[in-house]
Amino acid sequence: MTRTPKDLRNARPEDRSAALTTGTIAVLAAIRERAPLVQSITNSVVQNVTANALLAVGAAPAMVDTPGEAAVFARLASGLLVNLGTPSAEQRLGAQEAVPAALEAGRPWVLDPVAVGSLPLRTALAAELIGLRPTIIRGNASEILALAGAGAGGRGVDAADDVELALAPARELAARTGAVVAVSGPLDAITDGVVTVRTRNGHPLLTRMTGGGCALGAIMVAAAAVAPDPLTAAVAAHVFTGVAAELAAETAGGPGTFAAHYLDRLADVSADQIVSRAAFG
Amino acid sequence: MTRTPKDLRNARPEDRSAALTTGTIAVLAAIRERAPLVQSITNSVVQNVTANALLAVGAAPAMVDTPGEAAVFARLASGLLVNLGTPSAEQRLGAQEAVPAALEAGRPWVLDPVAVGSLPLRTALAAELIGLRPTIIRGNASEILALAGAGAGGRGVDAADDVELALAPARELAARTGAVVAVSGPLDAITDGVVTVRTRNGHPLLTRMTGGGCALGAIMVAAAAVAPDPLTAAVAAHVFTGVAAELAAETAGGPGTFAAHYLDRLADVSADQIVSRAAFG
Amino acid sequence: MTRTPKDLRNARPEDRSAALTTGTIAVLAAIRERAPLVQSITNSVVQNVTANALLAVGAAPAMVDTPGEAAVFARLASGLLVNLGTPSAEQRLGAQEAVPAALEAGRPWVLDPVAVGSLPLRTALAAELIGLRPTIIRGNASEILALAGAGAGGRGVDAADDVELALAPARELAARTGAVVAVSGPLDAITDGVVTVRTRNGHPLLTRMTGGGCALGAIMVAAAAVAPDPLTAAVAAHVFTGVAAELAAETAGGPGTFAAHYLDRLADVSADQIVSRAAFG
Repeated sequence: MTRTPKDLRNARPEDRSAALTTGTIAVLAAIRERAPLVQSITNSVVQNVTANALLAVGAAPAMVDTPGEAAVFARLASGLLVNLGTPSAEQRLGAQEAVPAALEAGRPWVLDPVAVGSLPLRTALAAELIGLRPTIIRGNASEILALAGAGAGGRGVDAADDVELALAPARELAARTGAVVAVSGPLDAITDGVVTVRTRNGHPLLTRMTGGGCALGAIMVAAAAVAPDPLTAAVAAHVFTGVAAELAAETAGGPGTFAAHYLDRLADVSADQIVSRAAFG
Repeated sequence: MTRTPKDLRNARPEDRSAALTTGTIAVLAAIRERAPLVQSITNSVVQNVTANALLAVGAAPAMVDTPGEAAVFARLASGLLVNLGTPSAEQRLGAQEAVPAALEAGRPWVLDPVAVGSLPLRTALAAELIGLRPTIIRGNASEILALAGAGAGGRGVDAADDVELALAPARELAARTGAVVAVSGPLDAITDGVVTVRTRNGHPLLTRMTGGGCALGAIMVAAAAVAPDPLTAAVAAHVFTGVAAELAAETAGGPGTFAAHYLDRLADVSADQIVSRAAFG
Repeated sequence: MTRTPKDLRNARPEDRSAALTTGTIAVLAAIRERAPLVQSITNSVVQNVTANALLAVGAAPAMVDTPGEAAVFARLASGLLVNLGTPSAEQRLGAQEAVPAALEAGRPWVLDPVAVGSLPLRTALAAELIGLRPTIIRGNASEILALAGAGAGGRGVDAADDVELALAPARELAARTGAVVAVSGPLDAITDGVVTVRTRNGHPLLTRMTGGGCALGAIMVAAAAVAPDPLTAAVAAHVFTGVAAELAAETAGGPGTFAAHYLDRLADVSADQIVSRAAFG
């Protein structure tokens, strides 16, 4: 598969970590320089924090999800997020018109299949959308297992299943859909079906604010719009948000101040901080 | 009425306060231990702060309000909130399918009748829903008066009427519906129609952030899912959120930082802090 | 045109600045004293921050946008905001019923034409609504140019075009619609078609939090409900929010803490701080 970065295949672990760290720094710098315009069709709970996280990393957010406008905008935007957290009838139609438009325009698009498996409308829509060549599929272990046909689905947005359990189904899902699949958890695993990268950055407080994972999906769109390949984009997004979370936790007094400090650190996390904290494998 | 906690009937005031304090601490500990899954069909303004408040107290939020999914999820969740603040057509249908499903599954459900009285769609829906045995009805004095048929309704989310004026209608509403009725204001009154508890915790800054009352309704669902009875649940939610607000106000520089510090304190408010601050009567 | 404040026509610059500063302080004091009830039909991304900003300045927010309720509420409210950022089918209908009701009741209403020009549904709706005598039209340069028929529209919520380029079209739009037109940017320009005021307060961090401009539109409704004329209202809203942003930036560690501090400063910005910082021309 040509889309796997060459320097990651058969690389020694230390060379691979160095390449991934360098790639992460380059992706973050490119987002800040080019300010990709990220169309987010996302759930109503997290639209605000998603827009703020995109602004913080240097991207430009736009939540255009209305049928009749969503496809028009997909041709103008740098990339598209479809998050299924609150799939109203209009959002479902909006996603169904925006994804083909993004594909035609050659834009990356990311699927975040929130709580698929147990809930029928989003499960049916996710099954339809994974046939439309998503660039990245991002979810917790429960969601990836459900999407791969190997699990019963999540009970909402938490992750009842273990990331390691989801790894083989994630690789299969990647091979079947052509997407990079990113499984988020205490340890994150990102695979294109051939190479699998584990990232270890992050902080438990990130799970105590709503929208941490959903914002990550949107940031992956920004990353995919500027990165050389989707695997590098997904890894970079996990690493620089994880490092920002670790830094934010050092000054936070709880989940409320953490949410504010996390945005502060997304805005100023530096190459040096990434080098000293990025953790793989 | 057997649902009234035995140790609150005919108890001396000091024994009653001690019992209520002990009950509050036990409910908070149970939420943190059992992480009840709270389905929130709530207004679009406060979904984010509601989810964050639920996460802060240790519950698991899920905003599943789409018709076709809302009833399915009501059977999986630990309890249901229906808040009428922005009653879109889809949310109205979502509530109408979720409440019967929650009832069938034996789950507690809380009604927050935002701005009923003056606005026709939500007033009609509230009149329908109070016939479906809500566990708790939570509102400000204007809203409770309107729901009880004794007032003209609020002008939005503020409380033009006095809590004391709403007490007799609240008791009548509780007797008629079988719900515990919680009237929020500078002083809060919570009644099951037989016993009435007044709680005095809280801070004016809580009225300067949007969603303080709406998040309280969601936290009542979490409380009702783990408490021995709905009166204890409603009192506990008022008291520990009120104590958290008082603590947050001590370090806040205004309503913006207050909102962040309030979440921080919801996450770490302790039994000792509740004992030293809980104020009843 | 009688609606232009008399003391601004043909005034010397220093007299004009003094009059505008005095007017700004009076408008802010009146909002805090009279707590105008602001109906906001606004996009789903910014409803929370808009409500919080209104509460912070002392106004009362209510997001009543459902068809069947929006017109009823427009007669009760002090004024109406229509922001086109996420124009769902229900919001479009809600706006179409609320604006005529607000007009009939003699209430001010503000149009925020987010991203008009490039997106068809909101562009058609904006063209319809500007015929209904908006009190104030608020947008960035791209949006004002598009609405005036002189530009291609924005790529979302940023402002690709320069405020100065938008000035002549803004004056023409004001003359044609009878609205005060406020063009936001690094420098703001506010015109009633006869007098044009430039305001220079604000901070770049205000563009790094989502909803800064959208909340300003809602605050303009509060201002218009209490001000002697729409030009004074629009200028006042730009100046006191801009001063609050400057003060917030002094203590913020990035865009996340800035958002919290901005609300804190909206709540306590003083007449003295406005006098020492207000910058015109």
